[in-house]
Amino acid sequence: MTIPLLLTPGPLTTSDTVKGAMQRDWGSRDEEFIAMNQKVRDRLVDVVHGEDTLVCVPIQGSGTFAIEATIGTLVARDAKLLVLVNGAYGTRMATICATIGREVTTLKWAEDEAVDPAAVDRYLADDPDVTHVALVHCETTTGILNPLDAVAEVVARRNRLLIVDAMSTFGALEIDARVTPFAAVVASSNKCLEGAPGVGFALINRALLADCAGNAHSLSLDLYDQWLGFEKNAQWRFTPPTHVIAAFSQALKEHAGEGGVLARGQRYRENHRILVDGMEAMGFRCLLERTLQAPIIVTFLMPGDPQFVFGDFYDHLARKGFLIYPGKLTTADSFRVGCIGHLGPAQMHDALGAIRESLDQMGVTNGAPTPVSGDVVTASD
Amino acid sequence: MTIPLLLTPGPLTTSDTVKGAMQRDWGSRDEEFIAMNQKVRDRLVDVVHGEDTLVCVPIQGSGTFAIEATIGTLVARDAKLLVLVNGAYGTRMATICATIGREVTTLKWAEDEAVDPAAVDRYLADDPDVTHVALVHCETTTGILNPLDAVAEVVARRNRLLIVDAMSTFGALEIDARVTPFAAVVASSNKCLEGAPGVGFALINRALLADCAGNAHSLSLDLYDQWLGFEKNAQWRFTPPTHVIAAFSQALKEHAGEGGVLARGQRYRENHRILVDGMEAMGFRCLLERTLQAPIIVTFLMPGDPQFVFGDFYDHLARKGFLIYPGKLTTADSFRVGCIGHLGPAQMHDALGAIRESLDQMGVTNGAPTPVSGDVVTASD
Repeated sequence: MTIPLLLTPGPLTTSDTVKGAMQRDWGSRDEEFIAMNQKVRDRLVDVVHGEDTLVCVPIQGSGTFAIEATIGTLVARDAKLLVLVNGAYGTRMATICATIGREVTTLKWAEDEAVDPAAVDRYLADDPDVTHVALVHCETTTGILNPLDAVAEVVARRNRLLIVDAMSTFGALEIDARVTPFAAVVASSNKCLEGAPGVGFALINRALLADCAGNAHSLSLDLYDQWLGFEKNAQWRFTPPTHVIAAFSQALKEHAGEGGVLARGQRYRENHRILVDGMEAMGFRCLLERTLQAPIIVTFLMPGDPQFVFGDFYDHLARKGFLIYPGKLTTADSFRVGCIGHLGPAQMHDALGAIRESLDQMGVTNGAPTPVSGDVVTASD
Repeated sequence: MTIPLLLTPGPLTTSDTVKGAMQRDWGSRDEEFIAMNQKVRDRLVDVVHGEDTLVCVPIQGSGTFAIEATIGTLVARDAKLLVLVNGAYGTRMATICATIGREVTTLKWAEDEAVDPAAVDRYLADDPDVTHVALVHCETTTGILNPLDAVAEVVARRNRLLIVDAMSTFGALEIDARVTPFAAVVASSNKCLEGAPGVGFALINRALLADCAGNAHSLSLDLYDQWLGFEKNAQWRFTPPTHVIAAFSQALKEHAGEGGVLARGQRYRENHRILVDGMEAMGFRCLLERTLQAPIIVTFLMPGDPQFVFGDFYDHLARKGFLIYPGKLTTADSFRVGCIGHLGPAQMHDALGAIRESLDQMGVTNGAPTPVSGDVVTASD
């Protein structure tokens, strides 16, 4: 049986040594586990150079759990959040607010347009009730990169607090707490840090968090309480996913060993370049302009050739050992291929070979999308 | 390095094959994972013979997440929950209600007394506002077993709905949905089912759950929405802990292979008997009467010998390869030793040997507690 490689937005392919770290059971209240967990928390703060200002509060569950916990804990019950939306994960943050009873408003862009800091600035000038702003760093709906630094500058200048969903960029794209002002950055174990899924975390300004007692709408998702627990005895309040944390600890060592954010980002940029060049050579076209694209996941327009049936394409690739995302979140007719995880140039070239073979088996000679008005596409050769 | 065995209330020791199941990365939206996940959900329903009435809704996180999700989803915003409290986990359910904004009332017993169904009956007769009742099957604070069947009978006769926290009994003590009426039973992967921690689940009456749209206080912890997601495409709404679920799948196969609930419970009862007999032979005394004790975790009264320092005892045992719970939740001065997990008679005898050695090294000749009035304890020999 071939174990497939994952070309997805996560969970993704991890190293054998990361998986190997899950071969031991840990006592969650034993000092050995406590020490390992503390190192994970410290290292996550280091990744964004937040030693002087930030605390790391990990939370059980998926990235969405961490996002909900951060919003519920930081945004007081009489506060108001502006969510900057250009995809499904921005929309989800607005849904969270509606569900947990926080006033929310949104500014929206098309899924192939980046958030515009000037529009944020104008909005904040006009709505004094907004206390917090939420931005998705890379909207994995399309893979678009939003201008974090410019938005953070605007939000800080307008004296509001910024919550950053850095789920799919943390550890691969530079975020520097000494330079970029934010209240919290939220991410998870199983994206660019290449750990196993099951735990998220927020890096929160310590002084702000200290003021958040009683805000949360949930006991399990109360990051203030969770932080107090860690402060008290360095232990989790409620059973942590011990194996996942052991894997995360190993993944963070490998991240540092590779050369940290710079080296991880460089590998992903190279994966991305190989993928896009290879796909374009087969006629595929990206949804996004290159300048808007993060080196995380790429959205390709659906080929126009009627022989191209996406479900068949997915199955062909799966049989050859590559899983891509089996669906779409975009409004555009498209599919996505990830370039993150424990993968390098060799795996990306192998994936391109498998894609080429799959097209041949389906009788598709060209991956070009159906031309739309004003869009000239080369005919199949 | 010795990897210690866990004599704790969980996370606990799992088999090598369960841990081995975490040596693969899974695409969370791929059909192979979907099929495995579906089998896990189906098997959990089977364990309580709920094929005709129950659905299994797993949820990311610890057992507390699953409890909060179940209360938040099943108890409507204008409903009222009666929590039957004789330990920390009952108290926590009441705290959850207060935090998430559900009306709550409690009936309380001492930590060494079981919940009394007759008192529940009287209470329900007098408070027509109570719509739901919550019971902890085995309160792991002490290890006391509460009378699930008798309480369920009372609650059903009074036309109320029962939520059962079966966190530390599920899979080892029989719960039969065909016989015992309940709205939901909640448990997790890492107790008697001997999986890795990171996922909980609720087995909920399908007809009741279908009526719960919009109840939840949280997006992440909305079990109605979570269920709809599974109904729609058999997928998790938000990233599941794929490795933990693969381990859970393997653990459930091993549970069935061992002979299911009956055999698992029998092994734990034997572990429990060996532990208590051996400890009593060393002079230790149990907090609970034998008839109240579940074969899950045992609370021993703190020895009266001044040479017995619990922290040292813990460290001695840890060095010999056994981790017990490093603290207490009881009001009584006591400590706890678990007898669940991938352990049998040989490991329990080894643990007793390590305890005997630890006492010798500490210069403790007898584990008897300080006598209290009316309690005659044999002098050290």
